[in-house]
Amino acid sequence: MERLVFGIQPVFEALRANRSIVKRILIEENSKNPALRQIQSLAEEKGITVQKVSRAVLSRMSKDEHHQGVVGGLTDQLYASWDDLIRNIRTKGKWARVLILDGLEDPQNFGSLIRTAEACGAAGIIIPKDRAVGLTPGALKASAGAFAHLPIVQVTNLANSLEDLKREGFWILGADARGEKSLYTMRWDMDIGVVIGGEGKGIRPRVLSKCDFVVSIPMVGKVSSLNAAIAGAIILFEIFRQHTCLAFAQ
Amino acid sequence: MERLVFGIQPVFEALRANRSIVKRILIEENSKNPALRQIQSLAEEKGITVQKVSRAVLSRMSKDEHHQGVVGGLTDQLYASWDDLIRNIRTKGKWARVLILDGLEDPQNFGSLIRTAEACGAAGIIIPKDRAVGLTPGALKASAGAFAHLPIVQVTNLANSLEDLKREGFWILGADARGEKSLYTMRWDMDIGVVIGGEGKGIRPRVLSKCDFVVSIPMVGKVSSLNAAIAGAIILFEIFRQHTCLAFAQ
Repeated sequence: MERLVFGIQPVFEALRANRSIVKRILIEENSKNPALRQIQSLAEEKGITVQKVSRAVLSRMSKDEHHQGVVGGLTDQLYASWDDLIRNIRTKGKWARVLILDGLEDPQNFGSLIRTAEACGAAGIIIPKDRAVGLTPGALKASAGAFAHLPIVQVTNLANSLEDLKREGFWILGADARGEKSLYTMRWDMDIGVVIGGEGKGIRPRVLSKCDFVVSIPMVGKVSSLNAAIAGAIILFEIFRQHTCLAFAQ
Repeated sequence: MERLVFGIQPVFEALRANRSIVKRILIEENSKNPALRQIQSLAEEKGITVQKVSRAVLSRMSKDEHHQGVVGGLTDQLYASWDDLIRNIRTKGKWARVLILDGLEDPQNFGSLIRTAEACGAAGIIIPKDRAVGLTPGALKASAGAFAHLPIVQVTNLANSLEDLKREGFWILGADARGEKSLYTMRWDMDIGVVIGGEGKGIRPRVLSKCDFVVSIPMVGKVSSLNAAIAGAIILFEIFRQHTCLAFAQ
């Protein structure tokens, strides 16, 4: 089945990607939306087929997703290789950040974390092949197109991949509410892999055993838990702050 | 129409609230889930009516929401008054945080921000009455029950409410991607109201004009935008870090 992406920003970002990941574009005929015209020119510039179709066809293709008049058909090779990831890490400045998701299930959370990781300049994302959400249309949409701008690698054994990452000089931070260290009491001046566990289940024991630091986000409320996408964002941006902005801060 | 809340954690948290906000509980008959039995005992302890109903009745009541075998009927007075908010601010330590949402539309984002604000000990949330999402069942669910533990105030004129907050000694931070100041270059050692704008639209000009600081989150990616709930979480937790954790950090 063709891999699809829906909506103006996700399609636009897929077209802007360095790698060529868009095979064809379907645009609503008779639409006057200038953003759709912009997508059409960009696709034509890149030699990508643009088909005009009725609104009904787009709606049928997109089911529950909002298509905003445009659907992109993507290549099967949306995932990057391990070598792509390592190459991208080496383009980063002094310190790099990599996000590792251990068994995330919700496409909205996955998409949101892709968007957040890209915004803080993470070098890539690692996810397991089994029992975890992948690059579904919902995740691609929720990423606001950020999926096109950083390598996302699927691996068969996440614990082994953490070992591989350590051999590249990385330290592994596992986020866990029971973590003994506070996110805010550590200096993160090193290459960091941030592991976020699945919704409700957290990080699996074998993966947790590979973490150099088990870290919690301090909280003071009565509910005292954060959504996985929120927890990941707070941790990634704290490390980003220390990696990039500390010179300017207090 | 009765205001409803669905699912184990939201109903449980509503029962745990200081204010009495639950009018009745409907529980799936013949369920063996111990969490449901716990909810039933807690409700009975508080003298709240518990009705046993069939799964079909719960499903019909909850439509698209996952009910997990329990639905709570809530009081109409879910919103707090301005005085409740001010009273709660005064219970806070040295510095307080208040979240202000200017025209948020997505119930998931609203619920997520309630949960995040509660987790960082915010003194309350202010939202406008018109053209903004309120405490819908989806928002209550997404808040994981946090809505029950901090005052959420609806106001008719958000710009005026910011003036009222300033008279209480608050400084107002408006989050805007075009903000000249970086979140990370400021010392936030003061009472802070954080204004987050609506998805895609941002903060309205009249509300923005009341902000003492217009602040952006530094970003380095190609997409360079964050979801409203993520941006709010990063800002709230940075201020929380400075208010609470700075003594331990570098």
